[in-house]
Amino acid sequence: MARPAYDEFCRQREEFFAREQGRGLGANLVLSPSEQRLNQYVMHLKQQELAKGVENPYELVSARHFFEMLDRINESPLFRLIQKMPKGGVLHAHDTAIGSTELIVRATRHAHLWQSGSIPQAAADPMPVYTFSRNKPTAEGEWRLVADIRSTMGDAAYEAAIRKMFTLYTTDPLNEHRDINDVWRKFMALFICFEPMVTYRPVWEEYYYGCLEELLADNVTYLEFRGLLPPVYDLDDRKYTPEEIVQMYVDQSEKFLRANPKFAGVKFIYAPLKFCDDSTFDGYLTLVQTLKARFPTFIAGFDLVGQEDLGRPHTDFNERLLRLPAGINFFFHAGETNWTGRRDENLIDAILLGTKRIGHGFAAIKHPVVLEEIKKRNICIELNPISNQVLKLVQDFRNHPGGFYFSDNYPVVVSSDDPSFWCASPLSHDFFVAFMGLASARADLRLLKQLALNSIEYSSMEGEEKTIATQKWTAAWNEYVEEMLKTIPAEF
Amino acid sequence: MARPAYDEFCRQREEFFAREQGRGLGANLVLSPSEQRLNQYVMHLKQQELAKGVENPYELVSARHFFEMLDRINESPLFRLIQKMPKGGVLHAHDTAIGSTELIVRATRHAHLWQSGSIPQAAADPMPVYTFSRNKPTAEGEWRLVADIRSTMGDAAYEAAIRKMFTLYTTDPLNEHRDINDVWRKFMALFICFEPMVTYRPVWEEYYYGCLEELLADNVTYLEFRGLLPPVYDLDDRKYTPEEIVQMYVDQSEKFLRANPKFAGVKFIYAPLKFCDDSTFDGYLTLVQTLKARFPTFIAGFDLVGQEDLGRPHTDFNERLLRLPAGINFFFHAGETNWTGRRDENLIDAILLGTKRIGHGFAAIKHPVVLEEIKKRNICIELNPISNQVLKLVQDFRNHPGGFYFSDNYPVVVSSDDPSFWCASPLSHDFFVAFMGLASARADLRLLKQLALNSIEYSSMEGEEKTIATQKWTAAWNEYVEEMLKTIPAEF
Repeated sequence: MARPAYDEFCRQREEFFAREQGRGLGANLVLSPSEQRLNQYVMHLKQQELAKGVENPYELVSARHFFEMLDRINESPLFRLIQKMPKGGVLHAHDTAIGSTELIVRATRHAHLWQSGSIPQAAADPMPVYTFSRNKPTAEGEWRLVADIRSTMGDAAYEAAIRKMFTLYTTDPLNEHRDINDVWRKFMALFICFEPMVTYRPVWEEYYYGCLEELLADNVTYLEFRGLLPPVYDLDDRKYTPEEIVQMYVDQSEKFLRANPKFAGVKFIYAPLKFCDDSTFDGYLTLVQTLKARFPTFIAGFDLVGQEDLGRPHTDFNERLLRLPAGINFFFHAGETNWTGRRDENLIDAILLGTKRIGHGFAAIKHPVVLEEIKKRNICIELNPISNQVLKLVQDFRNHPGGFYFSDNYPVVVSSDDPSFWCASPLSHDFFVAFMGLASARADLRLLKQLALNSIEYSSMEGEEKTIATQKWTAAWNEYVEEMLKTIPAEF
Repeated sequence: MARPAYDEFCRQREEFFAREQGRGLGANLVLSPSEQRLNQYVMHLKQQELAKGVENPYELVSARHFFEMLDRINESPLFRLIQKMPKGGVLHAHDTAIGSTELIVRATRHAHLWQSGSIPQAAADPMPVYTFSRNKPTAEGEWRLVADIRSTMGDAAYEAAIRKMFTLYTTDPLNEHRDINDVWRKFMALFICFEPMVTYRPVWEEYYYGCLEELLADNVTYLEFRGLLPPVYDLDDRKYTPEEIVQMYVDQSEKFLRANPKFAGVKFIYAPLKFCDDSTFDGYLTLVQTLKARFPTFIAGFDLVGQEDLGRPHTDFNERLLRLPAGINFFFHAGETNWTGRRDENLIDAILLGTKRIGHGFAAIKHPVVLEEIKKRNICIELNPISNQVLKLVQDFRNHPGGFYFSDNYPVVVSSDDPSFWCASPLSHDFFVAFMGLASARADLRLLKQLALNSIEYSSMEGEEKTIATQKWTAAWNEYVEEMLKTIPAEF
């Protein structure tokens, strides 16, 4: 076959580019003149950051481990611009891992907190046990009041130790956590250590309210979060029921929404551990129905959590799950693994069970029929890029499957999973990493805007609720664009 | 929407699985009863290896760095079974990096080899310079005869030092090479150091013949290799022309084929460096036409090589490349990068220029129209998984895009690129890694067989040549299956 003339070749090349770029996430958005100007500045900042990594890939903020680059990201003007951006909602995050470490530090300032064991000096040391109690929790054991430890160590030293303990952060992430099981062990230990501290009723309410404040400060205005509903307690040995605990979430949410009318709303996905026996599982299903009946708009639906490679497969639960009334929506974690042909097949169960969204969907890229069905059924993939890197699924963000999902406009949102434990903000760091590392170097403001829009579109809000949320977000976005334009250099 | 009954759900699940698995590489092959028996044993061995990695991901041979796992792979019964398998052809490898380090050691035993500088003690030390010459190569400089160094050090010590020097192998690959530029600098230094040793005519011929022997010993029976045609010389200061050099390849190939009728053939892709000015490039284009006219069946076509992120983009060359007669086929490297929206766009040029195959295509996964065109035009992607890991594109093989290409039966072959420099066999290690790390845990003997068949299908052989190669491979495969069945345990 003869080769085309150069002119014809160039025409074909233009057409190819147009076809391909027309398919990317956000490509259908038409930017206003103001947005176009802001976009020029955004792309200037992006290209500046990327240029460092062309000459010296080791300096690329979006290719290395988040922990190694955190300080540099925080100093980046592009990151600060993304922080201020109205990002819509967080659709994938776990209740006790959303707030910053400062909220945990604040919890340790409460009276009646006891500690048994010491704060680890080395990574392999066991973590201490905490509980709130009027008196020494058990007769035996080396329980000390945290107030006394604080007096001895000094508040600053104690709080510094707390900050260090309640994170997976390390300066040497490539070597310190060798594999996914290693890092998950540490990750689970954080949740376990933290639980009796956060399930103390005053802390429970204060921590959750603090999370909402931090979300809003990060310009996130909707939250759809997952929780296990662990037993909340108080100093009178009262153990609150799951309904009472959800009621606390509802009450705090309403209080927060009254004080912050910019915030669009909150919903809850009941997401207990998939490491359970069948009768425990039956209890979960009964509970989610009770909760849905009692809090019909607050309860979005049901999910199961835990390290996917090691947890029970979905096939163990399918028969029971199908008996749930159709009114209970599913939001299953699936494909949070880099295996293919093993537990990643939960993806198929999740889809056939009618899941509304898929948590992570990291492994979906290697399942062509899963990919087809995701598009056909418009199932949203909840990407959590920093989580996937910290929990050892991928090293270089440029190899995260999100890049594939972006390039062909799969239904996706970006979220943060457990930002507390990786020192990340509620959403901005994941947006930054998605924009710089997952997306094409050519992807622009339209991608960021589309991610925000998707977080409303794929939320569990409906009707009037969704309309209002969209209006609030649109107003905030337009204001943001105009405000940013006042601060950018004149040449843009 | 009401949920389906469990029976109906299970039926849908079966159907989903069948649809998905019917799309994978090799899924259309029907195994004979003998092959089915062998397959059961293969899958038993595969599951045994994978099981180690479920309990302890750090022990998974196909998830860690190849260098860290090389000894364990070599001990694996599944690897030994793959070594013996007739694997078809190597379609992507570079001439002076195919042979084992032992061929380099053998080269240093020739008389008249001079060395200036020392063999490095530390990674940062400069490499020595070599040349063959009757007399001291230059008046100044600290040239010593390798024969004299051998006498002083002892042959065993000298050869051990050579073995260590001519490889990227290190026991700490994650930390020793920090990024792609780091490891490419070392990689290029190996080629540069090695070139004057291998371009000495007696070594040139002996090294190439040795490569063919090693390919056959690894049960590879066809080679389509790339080369830069660096000037070959002899002790009489004769510099051979590119045509003379290709003639040496032809002569050695014919000699080898006469001695080894199981081998199906050899072809050559002229692949000079893309780091060149325009007039040098014009010279390449003239040369490839001269070579094609003189060696019409031996010369398969044209390619360009060099680190893609840093080399000139294809757009610099398109106009000139289009002027080449249609009889010169292209086999372009493209998408050997984890960037998106930069030099990976060479993929689009390569396709529109009519490339027959794509070298690497690592980045194609993030280009939906590239993916469509690859299928539509039946362009074969030459996967080189170990190369991509050693050269820092991906850490865990399970995140290599080959897994995606396998899952939806893209036209692919597996090859080895520069196996010499990573202590790999001509093809078996890449086949092993592809089978264990890229492919699904469920992928079986059909995938391996299809990879071998693809290497013939997507080769540059045509007509009778291809028919004979297929017949030879089929005979070898059937013999292999029967031989293996004699050795496997009775329960299979």
